[in-house]
Amino acid sequence: MVGGGQLARMTYQAAIALGLTVRVLSDRADDSAARVGAEVEIGSPDEIEALRRFAAGCDVLTFDHELVPPQHLAALRDAGHTLYPGADTMALAQNKRRQRQELGALGLPVPAFSTVSSESDLLSFGEAHGWPARPVVAKAVRGGYDGRGVWLLEDVPAAQRLWAEVTARGVELIVEAWVPIEKELAALVVRRPSGETAVYPSVETVQVAGICREVLAPASIPPDLADETCGLARRIAEAIGLVGVMAVELFVVREDEQATGSSGRLVLNELATRPHNSGHFSIEGCVTSQFENHVRAVLDWPLGDVSLAAPAAVMVNVLGGPPGNDPQAELARALADPVVKVHLYGKDARPGRKLGHVTVLGQDLEDARARARRAAAILMGEG
Amino acid sequence: MVGGGQLARMTYQAAIALGLTVRVLSDRADDSAARVGAEVEIGSPDEIEALRRFAAGCDVLTFDHELVPPQHLAALRDAGHTLYPGADTMALAQNKRRQRQELGALGLPVPAFSTVSSESDLLSFGEAHGWPARPVVAKAVRGGYDGRGVWLLEDVPAAQRLWAEVTARGVELIVEAWVPIEKELAALVVRRPSGETAVYPSVETVQVAGICREVLAPASIPPDLADETCGLARRIAEAIGLVGVMAVELFVVREDEQATGSSGRLVLNELATRPHNSGHFSIEGCVTSQFENHVRAVLDWPLGDVSLAAPAAVMVNVLGGPPGNDPQAELARALADPVVKVHLYGKDARPGRKLGHVTVLGQDLEDARARARRAAAILMGEG
Repeated sequence: MVGGGQLARMTYQAAIALGLTVRVLSDRADDSAARVGAEVEIGSPDEIEALRRFAAGCDVLTFDHELVPPQHLAALRDAGHTLYPGADTMALAQNKRRQRQELGALGLPVPAFSTVSSESDLLSFGEAHGWPARPVVAKAVRGGYDGRGVWLLEDVPAAQRLWAEVTARGVELIVEAWVPIEKELAALVVRRPSGETAVYPSVETVQVAGICREVLAPASIPPDLADETCGLARRIAEAIGLVGVMAVELFVVREDEQATGSSGRLVLNELATRPHNSGHFSIEGCVTSQFENHVRAVLDWPLGDVSLAAPAAVMVNVLGGPPGNDPQAELARALADPVVKVHLYGKDARPGRKLGHVTVLGQDLEDARARARRAAAILMGEG
Repeated sequence: MVGGGQLARMTYQAAIALGLTVRVLSDRADDSAARVGAEVEIGSPDEIEALRRFAAGCDVLTFDHELVPPQHLAALRDAGHTLYPGADTMALAQNKRRQRQELGALGLPVPAFSTVSSESDLLSFGEAHGWPARPVVAKAVRGGYDGRGVWLLEDVPAAQRLWAEVTARGVELIVEAWVPIEKELAALVVRRPSGETAVYPSVETVQVAGICREVLAPASIPPDLADETCGLARRIAEAIGLVGVMAVELFVVREDEQATGSSGRLVLNELATRPHNSGHFSIEGCVTSQFENHVRAVLDWPLGDVSLAAPAAVMVNVLGGPPGNDPQAELARALADPVVKVHLYGKDARPGRKLGHVTVLGQDLEDARARARRAAAILMGEG
């Protein structure tokens, strides 16, 4: 697994049960997965030589994040290494412009969007699709993450300021219609090379400032919308030749606003072609976790059952609290509620950094949510 | 954790989620836990110097098995190290004579037994409690495991042969009345230093030739018997000052045979003061696994909920099949049933060796059992 973050760490846990040792390529020895792995190679996933050395000892390469340079992925593929997801899939996942273009071309519900190669492209899209009634949304074509690389533009001066800033930094943009969101969903899909595909029950994600804070499973949406969500995830997985786990993030458009931008109630937001924060609940919440199924998929083994293991599951992220807060030091207090399941990632605490998560299963979603929130608050130094 | 077997391996998996790295003292680099651990020290748990070196870097020492020499445990304790379970508890767990004496003295239902210091002790116990109607059971005081160190003696010549053999090898014996068994149960109990104790739902264990083959959860026994089982486990945990997980193995005496040896239907068999094969089902089958609760207990953290996560859970052990069989090579086929959860221990295959286990949860115990058996058979080269 290329990258030593918490996704590699949790994949490692799952792989142990299958009798496997996942080798990890990690920037630093104190990265999340590097702290627990038996076979860790220190090296940068950004450097082709480190990648080549690492790939030489692996049967299959898979990824903890989407940030490996696409030319390196292509070079590894051309050198005969097996990459899952493949180099083309990874390149698509890294590029929001290509995602919009290619998924739009398939007739999938993407928001109105435009490529941007000049300030006037940005301004004319804003005039046509936003201002003054609504903002428009500019996004970096590459490298956005947890709310970074996304800008809400309210008016012409805001667009001009952003244009000056991104041209100075060499950042490419796309611009999209703002979507009036009723709720955000994620559909987790897993597919193996031979084509077998499974879609987890759709979940609702609660974002604050672009960062996922809570995941509620199952999403409380009408059955037809749930079916549509799963169907979209499956179509995308097949269209892009996915191997492994992918999260498809979607918006449910406010019912009174459907006229704008989309013919239906669902609008595609982003893809992540890897295990994803919206699927952490599956460790306890599903018969087979996203991490186990990712491993099974990249080995072309039969996929595990993705059914829910309880009527409701809630995951709450543990972000770094104020300076001095360390979730590890609060852990015993957080465990006072015996049904709370805590996952800490072994990362040094910093304000706002994803340091862990809490999952609670139950009969009742609101009760599970309250308990998970309470434990997470304790870990974040708020309880 | 002293010892690098599968119990250490599964404890390691659970500890990762809690943000901990369990350090492992392992005989060999290819031991089950040593293959996956980030901090492995190679050394013999039988040697005091290896134990001292290892203990120097640990906050708490706990154990993968009961075989560490008791004088070494006492020496570590006397040097100021924290051992959980404690040296006295471990010494009791290692010594079947002391177990029978001390638990019997507490009024707990041990079978009729006798210490053996001569051939005539053995013979007179056999005459009084067994022959010719029933056998008696001789057991090695120390070191028995998976059916080793237990002998069914049908008559005087068998007892004389055993006596000659064990005296030549310096093995100490006890002898017990044979118990007419209806079924075998195990009660898993966990206790932390501050006294909090939790008892898992009782399970039925199916043994073949002294080796656990299947565990059925919950045990299909009347509620009063289940309560009695849990009560016994709790009493023993408190009486011996347990810290960590302990498995209490019990016999249910055949109803038509209760007159012999015991006043009630339950007879204590053995104790194991560590995570135990009879608790492997708890990884998926309970809200908190025995491995997580063992870690929480030895750190004196609050214990997790021990409730069942499904109406039924069945665990089937994967033993090494005929020469040439390797469960790892059969894994993809075993996973064709999507609800099957497989745990392989990363051990080299040898006929009869415990190499892994399969767990299936379900609404119906017999269905879960059939599916778990099928997957285990595939892994063992029988399917």
